[in-house]
Amino acid sequence: MTTRSGRHFLQIPGPSSVPDRVLRAIAQPTIDHRGPDFAELGLDVLERVKPVFGTSGPVIIFPSSGTGAWESALVNTLSPGDRVLAFETGHFATLWRGMAEGLGLEVEFVPGDWRRGVDPHIVAERLAEDRNHSIAAVMVVHNETSTGVTSRVPQIRAAIDEAGHPALLLVDTISSLGSIDYRHQEWGVDVTVSCSQKGLMLPPGLGFNAVSEKALAAAGRARLPRSYWDWTPILQANERGYYPYTPATNMLYGLREALLMLEEEGLPNVFARHDRHAQATRAAVRGWGLEVLCADEREYSSVLTAVLLGEEYDADKVRQIILDRFDMSLGTGLSKLAGRVFRIGHLGHFNDLTLAGTLAGVQMGLELAGVAIDPGGLGAALELLRTE
Amino acid sequence: MTTRSGRHFLQIPGPSSVPDRVLRAIAQPTIDHRGPDFAELGLDVLERVKPVFGTSGPVIIFPSSGTGAWESALVNTLSPGDRVLAFETGHFATLWRGMAEGLGLEVEFVPGDWRRGVDPHIVAERLAEDRNHSIAAVMVVHNETSTGVTSRVPQIRAAIDEAGHPALLLVDTISSLGSIDYRHQEWGVDVTVSCSQKGLMLPPGLGFNAVSEKALAAAGRARLPRSYWDWTPILQANERGYYPYTPATNMLYGLREALLMLEEEGLPNVFARHDRHAQATRAAVRGWGLEVLCADEREYSSVLTAVLLGEEYDADKVRQIILDRFDMSLGTGLSKLAGRVFRIGHLGHFNDLTLAGTLAGVQMGLELAGVAIDPGGLGAALELLRTE
Amino acid sequence: MTTRSGRHFLQIPGPSSVPDRVLRAIAQPTIDHRGPDFAELGLDVLERVKPVFGTSGPVIIFPSSGTGAWESALVNTLSPGDRVLAFETGHFATLWRGMAEGLGLEVEFVPGDWRRGVDPHIVAERLAEDRNHSIAAVMVVHNETSTGVTSRVPQIRAAIDEAGHPALLLVDTISSLGSIDYRHQEWGVDVTVSCSQKGLMLPPGLGFNAVSEKALAAAGRARLPRSYWDWTPILQANERGYYPYTPATNMLYGLREALLMLEEEGLPNVFARHDRHAQATRAAVRGWGLEVLCADEREYSSVLTAVLLGEEYDADKVRQIILDRFDMSLGTGLSKLAGRVFRIGHLGHFNDLTLAGTLAGVQMGLELAGVAIDPGGLGAALELLRTE
Amino acid sequence: MTTRSGRHFLQIPGPSSVPDRVLRAIAQPTIDHRGPDFAELGLDVLERVKPVFGTSGPVIIFPSSGTGAWESALVNTLSPGDRVLAFETGHFATLWRGMAEGLGLEVEFVPGDWRRGVDPHIVAERLAEDRNHSIAAVMVVHNETSTGVTSRVPQIRAAIDEAGHPALLLVDTISSLGSIDYRHQEWGVDVTVSCSQKGLMLPPGLGFNAVSEKALAAAGRARLPRSYWDWTPILQANERGYYPYTPATNMLYGLREALLMLEEEGLPNVFARHDRHAQATRAAVRGWGLEVLCADEREYSSVLTAVLLGEEYDADKVRQIILDRFDMSLGTGLSKLAGRVFRIGHLGHFNDLTLAGTLAGVQMGLELAGVAIDPGGLGAALELLRTE
Repeated sequence: MTTRSGRHFLQIPGPSSVPDRVLRAIAQPTIDHRGPDFAELGLDVLERVKPVFGTSGPVIIFPSSGTGAWESALVNTLSPGDRVLAFETGHFATLWRGMAEGLGLEVEFVPGDWRRGVDPHIVAERLAEDRNHSIAAVMVVHNETSTGVTSRVPQIRAAIDEAGHPALLLVDTISSLGSIDYRHQEWGVDVTVSCSQKGLMLPPGLGFNAVSEKALAAAGRARLPRSYWDWTPILQANERGYYPYTPATNMLYGLREALLMLEEEGLPNVFARHDRHAQATRAAVRGWGLEVLCADEREYSSVLTAVLLGEEYDADKVRQIILDRFDMSLGTGLSKLAGRVFRIGHLGHFNDLTLAGTLAGVQMGLELAGVAIDPGGLGAALELLRTE
Repeated sequence: MTTRSGRHFLQIPGPSSVPDRVLRAIAQPTIDHRGPDFAELGLDVLERVKPVFGTSGPVIIFPSSGTGAWESALVNTLSPGDRVLAFETGHFATLWRGMAEGLGLEVEFVPGDWRRGVDPHIVAERLAEDRNHSIAAVMVVHNETSTGVTSRVPQIRAAIDEAGHPALLLVDTISSLGSIDYRHQEWGVDVTVSCSQKGLMLPPGLGFNAVSEKALAAAGRARLPRSYWDWTPILQANERGYYPYTPATNMLYGLREALLMLEEEGLPNVFARHDRHAQATRAAVRGWGLEVLCADEREYSSVLTAVLLGEEYDADKVRQIILDRFDMSLGTGLSKLAGRVFRIGHLGHFNDLTLAGTLAGVQMGLELAGVAIDPGGLGAALELLRTE
Repeated sequence: MTTRSGRHFLQIPGPSSVPDRVLRAIAQPTIDHRGPDFAELGLDVLERVKPVFGTSGPVIIFPSSGTGAWESALVNTLSPGDRVLAFETGHFATLWRGMAEGLGLEVEFVPGDWRRGVDPHIVAERLAEDRNHSIAAVMVVHNETSTGVTSRVPQIRAAIDEAGHPALLLVDTISSLGSIDYRHQEWGVDVTVSCSQKGLMLPPGLGFNAVSEKALAAAGRARLPRSYWDWTPILQANERGYYPYTPATNMLYGLREALLMLEEEGLPNVFARHDRHAQATRAAVRGWGLEVLCADEREYSSVLTAVLLGEEYDADKVRQIILDRFDMSLGTGLSKLAGRVFRIGHLGHFNDLTLAGTLAGVQMGLELAGVAIDPGGLGAALELLRTE
Repeated sequence: MTTRSGRHFLQIPGPSSVPDRVLRAIAQPTIDHRGPDFAELGLDVLERVKPVFGTSGPVIIFPSSGTGAWESALVNTLSPGDRVLAFETGHFATLWRGMAEGLGLEVEFVPGDWRRGVDPHIVAERLAEDRNHSIAAVMVVHNETSTGVTSRVPQIRAAIDEAGHPALLLVDTISSLGSIDYRHQEWGVDVTVSCSQKGLMLPPGLGFNAVSEKALAAAGRARLPRSYWDWTPILQANERGYYPYTPATNMLYGLREALLMLEEEGLPNVFARHDRHAQATRAAVRGWGLEVLCADEREYSSVLTAVLLGEEYDADKVRQIILDRFDMSLGTGLSKLAGRVFRIGHLGHFNDLTLAGTLAGVQMGLELAGVAIDPGGLGAALELLRTE
């Protein structure tokens, strides 16, 4: 029997489920973006968002998708023909590379097998080889949403420092921010790229750049054409809580509410919650006798788990059965991984029993799809949820 | 670890989880209750609500709780000193009896063990004994929310008919309406009592009376004092879609939306969904090696399952652990059943994976509370959800 | 040209316009009415509502309309055959009288012309005549919603005291509470009856009784049958923040929000705002050369103004034109006043420019209906709004 | 006395007041942007939005502000060093020119006095002079939000045609779309730029480009770097209702609702409503003895009216008084016009009585600020509202 009643299980790795509280905040009447009430809102969110990025410096907020925030990171800091070092960690890293090339940058793209993060040794090696410092920036995807692999940014930072290389460090935290421990300032990141619809528990529609002093200095020299993405007029208007254009006021209402929720739970608790749910999910995957795509346990993602199926199965068929029968959305395998993996999102506004329902749905769906699994997987996850 | 993120699991046997769609409907601006827009709303809900009761006759809607709708059923049809026949099927039947006595009626209360519904044979017997037809009404709770036992109204009707007795049949469908098949007209019920916060998927705040021709005739003779609950002025104003007082307009917005949802899913599908979830729940309970309170399989409730624990356990401690650790509310054991049972609600806006999460939470909570169970219970439920 | 865009002007004397903030509060998910979160909500609203009534004693909240709260005031304090003193101040006073008679009380109903409030001299006179204290209660409508006349409760209290009479004082504040200064305790009121949809800025659906010690003592002796309205079990459950039945949880969310709004503005400011808007409205009415129904300036209502038209006009035609052309609802003339008056509500969540729009609509509507008016009315109102 | 109760009067020329219905739509749970429900939503809004632009061709929707949509129009159709013809009609035309220059275009900027629209004769003249067709595009702001002047696009089109010039016609309809009659296709516009927060009655956060075949062809040749704004991948994904990145799902919910509202009212009625409200506003301005900024009656804006004050007054002081005393936001004078004008928005979800309240507030504010006016202004507006 197929049911479509109750809440949809939105277990893709983003957009995550938006809390009712945030949805109600977004539904407040729009106000004058040049009036005193807006200034108060603007100053408030610009300040409250900083700890989530782990920075005391500026965070720039755009009405945009996360890809817009990528573009902003590039056009504000680089010039036509600049070389950047990037890593094939998965689908999104590959897209970002394509964007960089499309904007006229030269990308040195280190190949990868989509099961591992950025190797700090290779970073060190490539930068050491770059004696004349022709590489202007290193582009890293913190959490690869397509693979469930989290690159180790502190080690990458250390590798850059070790090489004594002045390259900027640009990091995409689109699916990690607000869910996985992240420290823009402490880790010496120059531009942190992010968006609203994952750990920040908002609908899609906002892009973010947290920027270092060094990035701001680079912006003064960068010559890629920029207008909408230009940090300078925004930072200037932000000083009094305003924007140079009409900002996405209602999304900012939601952002304030979501930031309050993160403060109430406490960021360390939020991170621990995600770690624990990821552990339980991996326990289920292993219990089923299936393989987690991420090949290095130091790089397991706490926001999503990509599950690798044997070649005899079609992961999209499994997803379709689960959607049809159990009204749950899972993430598809992207490009190279199409049909081979499905992705379980366990991020944002989420709890133990929703995870239990999610894993129950995956288990039943695998069985219905004829994938040979050990039904003990769910029990292994519950064991962890119960005891830890 | 304790989490309080994500959606609360509201698995009490009512109020059930209100769909977002209904909540948004309730949040519409209040309108003039004497204007044309209200008349349209009023006529619409008064018509759409009828099939849910299984009637083509009038349904009266009060701003009240369900207990208010009980009172209305009594004061509109009975006179001081009238005799009524009632049955001790559980806590709510007992409350209703108390109300009847408080209002000056004489209640013949057939004792029961709180594990069974109304016995049609006893109905037949008692009415047969009442040669001079001094019993004015038979009061039946269709689904006892305190026990998870559903009385068989058609058989009760047959028993009354068999006895050739003119007593009115008053039925409380507070926790069954819109979830369990119910037919006011076909089953010859005279007053069906109900409320908003269970199968109708609304917040609490509305009470209902579906009334038969015979009930309306009785109302003409009944002498219990009545004003607020008086059907007559309401039915008169309802003809044009209005009310004699200011009705609960925003709740009626919600009611319209909820009725549309029931129409979209189709009542037979809604009933089948509840039956199936109840079966899966009982499969889990038995799988755990525990006992379902309801002692007669013909009377299993499709909206809730009361689970009986051994005397060595405290059911409220289990509930507290589940609330604290898994943010799920379950129903407590009421009066006689305090500490002995807990109740799992599986009604209203609900689906397979939410049930799976619910049962996972119950299983983990039982284990944490030290109740000796077989952890295969959840698997037995999933087996049923997967295959049926 | 007829427009139907923008916000409807709901200028009936209640329901008043519900603030967005309250509507969003009402749209929060329903919770377990027996759980700890509910207790917190219950205790909070039961405490915060007291200052609005001007009492430190209990306030009882029912899922009901305001008429339900009337019934509660009567059945909790009186016995069959009791005599009560009531006054024909308008439509609602007359309805209340009818209710009292319907419930088996004997009503001494002092006739009136629907343009004046309760005359304290007559109260004194009648009670003085009642040497054997056969009158059990005095029933007063504080603000007659049908006429825009506010009876002077302190003077009525003084008249009762002067007569040395022990009668209970029951006061209907349905359209005054939260808009006009009111002091349950200081004025020695025994039961204050009220509802949610006027000064409390909520949708309809809640009824209120504030009760004195003397009223509670009377409840111990009163013999009118009561069950739903019985204060005793409610007060007992309220001690811990609960209710004996499922309360209207979502309306209580809204009540909390509305009470916070009243606190933020400050009750004295709220009252002053209503007084000022009423003055401006009367300035407009006089400026138009029309008559305010209320005949005694000490009794002008601050929440609504009933405008009396000459016999050659049909007030309902004026209202219809205003509704059709300007999408504004005004109050109709009730019973005796049908066709002779229309009522302008200026209560609840309301401000200067909404009043200006309201009066502009009334002025244009009067002109369109062919009522001979001086168009300087609006200017007179604005003069007052601008300068005071 | 200062009040802050009731609804804020948001009478800036955008964002306009968002209807409750649209706010509730935006508050729906976010869904999987790659699932079937999204595809249905995407296809639906992409189709329904076309008539509002007056096109049967594609409309591209960005998560962005309106300035983002400007950038998109430029980078998709032009190459570095291209010449464009633009007109100094006001603040926003000047900003757009600055953007074009910043992106590396050469702008021929025809000076203006900020009181008139684009002169079709000058268009004809300049294009005729451009014998070798070095001008690649003509940039026109349809409704200058800073001045309340609406340029006559059909005449401009005719001028281009007359000159036999192949330049693209790019038109900013940011504050006109959905409020003032506009016909992308009939008028031969190549790119129509717009946004969500004015006539579309949404919060800010969406940018739009309606594009002609000719614009699409130009996109194939254009060499300004583009990635986020690139039409090609979006149009490709839009075919099945999707987007190449995560779109602003909740804003699209709102868009669907707003489009339904425009359909229900009927676009011709919407346009007529705005025309009439603008006429009434100008009647008030003239009645006060003040000057409308727009100097050519063929170019009066139907969405806003900029009011010019004598040099002895400070328009921002007037605005501040109105905000403080009457809780109404008006538009400020931008750049050259700072302190000299204030702008009254009368667009979007709006009606007669809200306009009456708005004009009453402006009139009282002018008086309080000591501006010498004739208080008959409001009456002149009402006369028009009443009779037309």
